[in-house]
Amino acid sequence: MSSTSVATAAMLAIGDELLSGRTKDKNIGQLADVLFLAGIDLKEVRIVGDEEDAIVEALNALRARYTYVFTSGGIGPTHDDITADAISKAFGVPCLHDPLAMQLLGAMYERRGVEFNEARQRMARMPQGAVHIENAVSTAPGFHIGNVYVMAGVPQVFTAMLGTVIPKLEGGVPMLSRSVASPFGEGDIGSALAAIQKNHPETSIGSYPRFSENRFSTEIVIRSREEAPAQAAERDIMAMIAEIAAGKAAS
Amino acid sequence: MSSTSVATAAMLAIGDELLSGRTKDKNIGQLADVLFLAGIDLKEVRIVGDEEDAIVEALNALRARYTYVFTSGGIGPTHDDITADAISKAFGVPCLHDPLAMQLLGAMYERRGVEFNEARQRMARMPQGAVHIENAVSTAPGFHIGNVYVMAGVPQVFTAMLGTVIPKLEGGVPMLSRSVASPFGEGDIGSALAAIQKNHPETSIGSYPRFSENRFSTEIVIRSREEAPAQAAERDIMAMIAEIAAGKAAS
Repeated sequence: MSSTSVATAAMLAIGDELLSGRTKDKNIGQLADVLFLAGIDLKEVRIVGDEEDAIVEALNALRARYTYVFTSGGIGPTHDDITADAISKAFGVPCLHDPLAMQLLGAMYERRGVEFNEARQRMARMPQGAVHIENAVSTAPGFHIGNVYVMAGVPQVFTAMLGTVIPKLEGGVPMLSRSVASPFGEGDIGSALAAIQKNHPETSIGSYPRFSENRFSTEIVIRSREEAPAQAAERDIMAMIAEIAAGKAAS
Repeated sequence: MSSTSVATAAMLAIGDELLSGRTKDKNIGQLADVLFLAGIDLKEVRIVGDEEDAIVEALNALRARYTYVFTSGGIGPTHDDITADAISKAFGVPCLHDPLAMQLLGAMYERRGVEFNEARQRMARMPQGAVHIENAVSTAPGFHIGNVYVMAGVPQVFTAMLGTVIPKLEGGVPMLSRSVASPFGEGDIGSALAAIQKNHPETSIGSYPRFSENRFSTEIVIRSREEAPAQAAERDIMAMIAEIAAGKAAS
């Protein structure tokens, strides 16, 4: 994959509990970190509840638009876990008890002396033709079909599944990132920073305000897929900060 | 507003930093909590980067579908703060320096002896016809236009703005929520819980697995807009847990 052909991604987090505030999502930030390191651009995230129509619509919108789609949540054994059904519907294939998943789960429950009941068998259901994503934490597999990777919502399991998925994906050239701490708020640096961005079009310069002890400071982040443009922009930003500091000292 | 007419909401969180993993969003969970208490159903969340087309498209999709849309991020003074422009474009109105916002910000900077420069004046820009959302933390106002409420991304400011917005909204009948801690994992309770949900259609029963010390437990949450159905479902769930516990003790 060349530096101009960049893999993109979207995330679809599924679960009423994320929308009611009961659960504070941890998987979005985790996925964002991992994709950033892999050089895959996360472009959009959606959160929807446990409603089939909402999942199908969001999934179809995202999978048509991005290289990869990652989902979290809704693949457990209870009645409100409907992600496997919704994904099957989106792809227009039946949702079946996967023989290999039945075997893995059956063997695991037998070892533990636990009944492999109807609810637990739900965790073996996936769209016909889907391929397993290994679950090293609690056995019940995720799955991928087409460009969609379906993973658990429990953060420990999501992270473990992500660890098996990412190395298999075709990434891009990882984005380099340099960060400059500005003691001045965005109001002080805004105009000069806009000019610097204009002079360094091969970089993407972001400005992230922080508010602490009743005053703003700024973290300036330079992103680029190559080293030289990022260095050049960083030099100009350091010079800008020195100039503002000198101006404040003189006034 | 009657109990059958329920206000719905969506959130649009804006910012490259949320998608790169640099910033872990805190506003989604905050909004979810506040809306839940107000009886407004948060139905969907989207996160997009600082790209005008992406913001316009997501905003237009969400504002057509839900009673209220809340946005966070992109209303600061730097070149990558383009939310006001994007919202204006979505509504088809010009983005202008609002006279009242210019006055508020100008007075604040004058008091502080700080230059009210071009970058800082950017924070006074909003769609023509928009109404201020007060910012008690750092003066620069958010705004609302139509059913869209545009707020800052810095969590302290987002929360302060939300506090002034929510009391003015027409809410619904707040959702009641009861929670039952199940010492058993979803595999043990799944089938019985599905039957209980079927017997209590006026409630929405959710099941939230926890994984800790190498075993699963479950939090079962019953939501309903009325008390009696929630109580009835809770009784059946307690009986189910007692029955499973007795079965395990006997085996």
